Amino acid sequence: METQKKILCVGLVCLDIINVVEKYPEEDSDSRCLSQRWQRGGNASNTCTVLSLLGASCAFMGSLSAGPVADFILEDFQNSCIDVSLVSEHAQCVLPASVVISSVSTGSRTILHMNRNLPDVSAEDFSKIDLHQFKWIHWEGRNADEQVKMIQKVLMYNSTLPQQDRISMSVEIEKIREPLFQLFPHGDVVFVSKDVARHFGFQSGEAAVKGLYSRVKPGATLICAWAEKGADALGPDGVVVHSDAFSPETLVDTLGAGDTFNAAVIYTLYNGGTLQDALIFGCKVAGRKCGFHGYSGITERFKDE
Amino acid sequence: METQKKILCVGLVCLDIINVVEKYPEEDSDSRCLSQRWQRGGNASNTCTVLSLLGASCAFMGSLSAGPVADFILEDFQNSCIDVSLVSEHAQCVLPASVVISSVSTGSRTILHMNRNLPDVSAEDFSKIDLHQFKWIHWEGRNADEQVKMIQKVLMYNSTLPQQDRISMSVEIEKIREPLFQLFPHGDVVFVSKDVARHFGFQSGEAAVKGLYSRVKPGATLICAWAEKGADALGPDGVVVHSDAFSPETLVDTLGAGDTFNAAVIYTLYNGGTLQDALIFGCKVAGRKCGFHGYSGITERFKDE
Repeated sequence: METQKKILCVGLVCLDIINVVEKYPEEDSDSRCLSQRWQRGGNASNTCTVLSLLGASCAFMGSLSAGPVADFILEDFQNSCIDVSLVSEHAQCVLPASVVISSVSTGSRTILHMNRNLPDVSAEDFSKIDLHQFKWIHWEGRNADEQVKMIQKVLMYNSTLPQQDRISMSVEIEKIREPLFQLFPHGDVVFVSKDVARHFGFQSGEAAVKGLYSRVKPGATLICAWAEKGADALGPDGVVVHSDAFSPETLVDTLGAGDTFNAAVIYTLYNGGTLQDALIFGCKVAGRKCGFHGYSGITERFKDE
Repeated sequence: METQKKILCVGLVCLDIINVVEKYPEEDSDSRCLSQRWQRGGNASNTCTVLSLLGASCAFMGSLSAGPVADFILEDFQNSCIDVSLVSEHAQCVLPASVVISSVSTGSRTILHMNRNLPDVSAEDFSKIDLHQFKWIHWEGRNADEQVKMIQKVLMYNSTLPQQDRISMSVEIEKIREPLFQLFPHGDVVFVSKDVARHFGFQSGEAAVKGLYSRVKPGATLICAWAEKGADALGPDGVVVHSDAFSPETLVDTLGAGDTFNAAVIYTLYNGGTLQDALIFGCKVAGRKCGFHGYSGITERFKDE
């Protein structure tokens, strides 16, 4: 029954409105997009999408407004077979859209985020869920104070169980925000972004996982992906593991590549793969994902690998 | 019963996603908006909004997709008491969003349009409507070939009626597109934009209405608004009429100011006001509208003027 247990991702869902342009528009101009698409976004939401496409049973926990955009989002979650029973709706809030301007000529992505007036998942919300259904819980680092409390609840839950029934926990530290750094010592697997690694003065994935390893808890694994340089990881055995990137022939769409990497790594480790397997699979799925728009291409290409 | 007859606006409705930013984002950056709002947009749709807020009974004719954005649009039309019985729904089409980036520091508005796969209103669609319900029809210049045919249908209809029952017709030539210029000799009132006037080599509203007057039909009125310079108009009496602009203390939102001007001018002429009255009211409503976001502020400030 072990493999029936789900992977839960806690974090953000939002709407990405992706505008593909020939070149980035000048200020005060009036121009026409080559194409426009609406996509469910947000790190934890994207990670769920890829997990589900890879064949894992997964659930998303986060907050959502009411209204037409929320309907679009919920429908899209359901089309991706992602369990949304832990999504809380906030009728009075507005779900904002992130506007992405994707330039064909330079490959740049300019992103305009919106401050949400939606509350993040609280430790109290989290305390109400039945942990028995999960084998892995992943947190997108956001309201870290509350997230640490959630992790402590899972630790307590785990302490009552034999090793093989315990829930594995991963955290993602992507943004350069001081409060998020308290997440380092929590999580069996810690994903740290290139941005955060650079903020700490590291110029490569290997340097980052070595230099930041003292921040994670004993026995944990620290992973850092570095775009076209691939990814590095360091586990309790002290050996740095590396995978090169698997770049697509043509770079088409890098949006969500990091979330895809995280999903493929979690998927491998959840299924008992090694750290080396996980890094290679992470780089493969993320790299090739950049060769097509969105995520659905993952189904055909990776499900049976 | 004359005043019960409606004003019909034929043209575009779309969704504007307006992102207010501190400064225009650099290419490939990741930044946060100060605010974001969704607004029903499109010239003819905006003109209807303002007409309705001013107290006129009006209808919109245009095409719409199906889906959540269309629901938002239809609800918003209904909240504005605009008759949408002539809106045709195209289930298989996508209603695209125009992305507007509005910079607080420079006042610039950068607009990213999307090619719609929605068909414009055709002369055939138009031929099915009951013209008796209208006293004024306004066309936003788009598919001009078809629009000329619609205007000819109204001319035929008018020819069967006494002067006082005839439908007045206005056209807007806003974009610099050769096919739109065939609309000049149609319409009792022709609105020509500053952009188009400049394209023809004119550097002021007065120069534009004088220089372009030969293009309109005998007896018609040509109107050209010129942002903070106010607006000029020339009618069959050969006298150029002018109104200064009424700029708000602080420029908050210029989006739709032109559509607002057109609505206020049409509203005045429809109610029997003079051309001078119409220009002044047009500049007043449009100018002051720039002092607040959206249109609803118009209700309190102008309805009883």
